Amino acid sequence: MLPESPPPVRPVFYVSDGTGITAATIGHSLLTQFSGFRFVTDRIPFVDTPEKARQAVAEIVRAGANCGRRPIVVNSCVDPELNRILSESGALMLDVFAPFIKPLERELDAPRQSRVGQAHGMVDFDTYHRRINAMNYALTHDDGMALDYGDADLILVAVSRAGKTPTCVYLALHYGIRAANYPLTEEDLESDRLPPRLRAHRDKLFGLTIDPLRLHQIRQERRPNSRYAEMETCRREVAAAETLLRMERIPTLSTTHTSIEEIASRILEDLGINREMF
Amino acid sequence: MLPESPPPVRPVFYVSDGTGITAATIGHSLLTQFSGFRFVTDRIPFVDTPEKARQAVAEIVRAGANCGRRPIVVNSCVDPELNRILSESGALMLDVFAPFIKPLERELDAPRQSRVGQAHGMVDFDTYHRRINAMNYALTHDDGMALDYGDADLILVAVSRAGKTPTCVYLALHYGIRAANYPLTEEDLESDRLPPRLRAHRDKLFGLTIDPLRLHQIRQERRPNSRYAEMETCRREVAAAETLLRMERIPTLSTTHTSIEEIASRILEDLGINREMF
Repeated sequence: MLPESPPPVRPVFYVSDGTGITAATIGHSLLTQFSGFRFVTDRIPFVDTPEKARQAVAEIVRAGANCGRRPIVVNSCVDPELNRILSESGALMLDVFAPFIKPLERELDAPRQSRVGQAHGMVDFDTYHRRINAMNYALTHDDGMALDYGDADLILVAVSRAGKTPTCVYLALHYGIRAANYPLTEEDLESDRLPPRLRAHRDKLFGLTIDPLRLHQIRQERRPNSRYAEMETCRREVAAAETLLRMERIPTLSTTHTSIEEIASRILEDLGINREMF
Repeated sequence: MLPESPPPVRPVFYVSDGTGITAATIGHSLLTQFSGFRFVTDRIPFVDTPEKARQAVAEIVRAGANCGRRPIVVNSCVDPELNRILSESGALMLDVFAPFIKPLERELDAPRQSRVGQAHGMVDFDTYHRRINAMNYALTHDDGMALDYGDADLILVAVSRAGKTPTCVYLALHYGIRAANYPLTEEDLESDRLPPRLRAHRDKLFGLTIDPLRLHQIRQERRPNSRYAEMETCRREVAAAETLLRMERIPTLSTTHTSIEEIASRILEDLGINREMF
């Protein structure tokens, strides 16, 4: 029997007068609902003049001709003139704002203001500052480096390489949250109790755990063939950490099959922290 | 004359069967197009059972009653039954996927698959790994700590506190890009030339600059009343760095009024790097 040929490739463009993040986010969410297709995606950001719109059209048309398939354009440009030019590409146009503007105008009894590229563009100093300070906090309170947790919004607790650092940095960048993290040491794990400096901040604690095999793979990359990376070490540490977290009633999540976005979202939900996302 | 009373508050909910990131992203973009209103936003993620949908409805109804205003729900739940329950809240329902599914089904000649919470949910090991490795790279190559740039996808060059670190971390987390950064030292600035170790990677270099007054404010917070933070120091360093970057023809962007998202997006565009966003 012949092997099945792979599905043909379909070009997808995220076109925007700003960064293209909104278009890419919704576009990606839409494409995940059509599995079995192969999409080749490309971003065309900062399309804010007719000239740039025409360049975008040329790129879209070229991609369609190369693939022999009609491209899909997920578009977040606000200016009607730019949208008219873009539609000349002959691509399937999905305008991410259009369906929602009329209902919102009716509801709010006010017209939309069509300034371009607002969502991820200019920022006020306070917002920028809050993100940057949160990130500095995450980096200086990473891996138990600084242990003054008075200013922390939350403290992640886990064995080494279970996913604490990326989660803390993500929480800082996207929610302006001061997230510290504490690596459970062999000593902590043997004593079967939380270290006293963590006990003082019990309501800020959140545990992460991980499949021991996955942990072994990650540690192997970092320190190949070390005792630290041994399967047996990983199994023992994870088991002890899970016991400790359960006994101390710390809410805990496994990072094994969970994206950083989902980990962050679940932690905020669990700890009842409501912050607007940047 | 009496001062104008502030506009009444309107509750907005981002409801999702997953993290709610897609709903929050498009919702935020929509709200920025209606300035002059005060929105109070809240995320209700992981609404994946009728029971949770009913809890969400209760929360939405309560918020509407408290404000005396009809809430707005930006909703990315896929299951029709959950959407039916949510619509009982009486809120203005904006379904972020609905308008695009039919056109996509027609174009691809295939029905959508309605698994919940796919966009930012489960992840394969490779993707996770690439993000984490990129982030470790950014953290170990931050602020000139490690100077082996062979593996770098790009290298940010700027004076201290101009925004290099958050940009590198953002590029790593969202694009899996290995971004190093190099702080221009007084010595570099005096010699008016790029340090030799950077010259070898000329095509990976990108400069950041910043308004001297803003830099002064940021440095003041970090080391109050130091020579490092003095207005005069900031002015001199920024002028020298801008001259150096211009003479060496390094593409350069000011971070003063630019969000981290936009900085990242412009750098990728300028260096011609195309990566799918996570």
